[in-house]
Amino acid sequence: MNLLKQIEFIKEIDKVKYIQRKTRLFNSQRHENDAEHSWHLALMALVLAEHSNAPIDILKVIKMVLIHDIVEIDAGDTFIYDSQKNHSNTDEERMAARRIFGLLPESQADELIAVWEEFEAGVSSEAKFARAMDRLEPLLQNTSNEGGTWSEFGVGYEKVYEKKSAIKHGSETLWDYARQLIDESVDKGILKKG
Amino acid sequence: MNLLKQIEFIKEIDKVKYIQRKTRLFNSQRHENDAEHSWHLALMALVLAEHSNAPIDILKVIKMVLIHDIVEIDAGDTFIYDSQKNHSNTDEERMAARRIFGLLPESQADELIAVWEEFEAGVSSEAKFARAMDRLEPLLQNTSNEGGTWSEFGVGYEKVYEKKSAIKHGSETLWDYARQLIDESVDKGILKKG
Repeated sequence: MNLLKQIEFIKEIDKVKYIQRKTRLFNSQRHENDAEHSWHLALMALVLAEHSNAPIDILKVIKMVLIHDIVEIDAGDTFIYDSQKNHSNTDEERMAARRIFGLLPESQADELIAVWEEFEAGVSSEAKFARAMDRLEPLLQNTSNEGGTWSEFGVGYEKVYEKKSAIKHGSETLWDYARQLIDESVDKGILKKG
Repeated sequence: MNLLKQIEFIKEIDKVKYIQRKTRLFNSQRHENDAEHSWHLALMALVLAEHSNAPIDILKVIKMVLIHDIVEIDAGDTFIYDSQKNHSNTDEERMAARRIFGLLPESQADELIAVWEEFEAGVSSEAKFARAMDRLEPLLQNTSNEGGTWSEFGVGYEKVYEKKSAIKHGSETLWDYARQLIDESVDKGILKKG
């Protein structure tokens, strides 16, 4: 019966609330968890949609950001500036997607796995915009937290610029704004060059 | 400029992550916060949509659940079984909606205030289904937490039955399931009759 499978999935994803990110809340020392993060990205996508480079199906973008970190229940959170471990689309994440979305009735599982794969591939307009949200939120957090993870882990301007530049594929307007924040962070001394 | 207003809103709603609910996570002693709760409802709506009594615009339902608790930044969380304070649509919440959504560009503010009012009114099919999600999640949590808030605050079967019966306006199927959970809770002794 569909309902009982759906309830199993709903119970399982509660675990997303326990996955701590490296980033901290705005103006705070408390780490953000993946569920809060995903909620915030969904609202960001909703209010920032007009800045997308290309027309987007906003419902699909919202689905992407709501589910993008569910695989971390099994695969764990990988810090974006981790140089040892590749962030995207590891076999571990693929297996996690099959197990967790696989709790749902088959057609729903297939749909959400496809949405997750599309987000990870980063090729469609929706994926580009969703990924821009995922890059922008921690930038806003770090600039409100005296450098946040940049200071804590000694991440420099060049690395930040490189990682954040993915924002431009989703939105040139947001990338202009992000660059301005990055430059201001250098001026304020909360992000180091060279 | 629209973007700077949108960024102000995005920063402001970070405060939703600090608002603690009475309910606790599944199989846990940790309280849930409003951001995690809203994320969970959005995914519940997405996977349970087929059980709605009436056809629904799922994007609108998701908007409703994502924003429904934002007013609590100013108005605070009111426990559903609080007999002193009316939960819905207080003047305080209306003022909060105007202030917080009012940070956005005018057309977006107007839209989100209207969506929030529609959710609160509980008349449209989307509002009924969104409200069913809001009732169902803590029921799932309490049944996985040995009675959770029912035990903690001495809430009895009759009150729970009355409050949860709102689920039927959104979905008869989910209400059948919810009633079954409530009856099982009485049998297990985690919810008291009379």
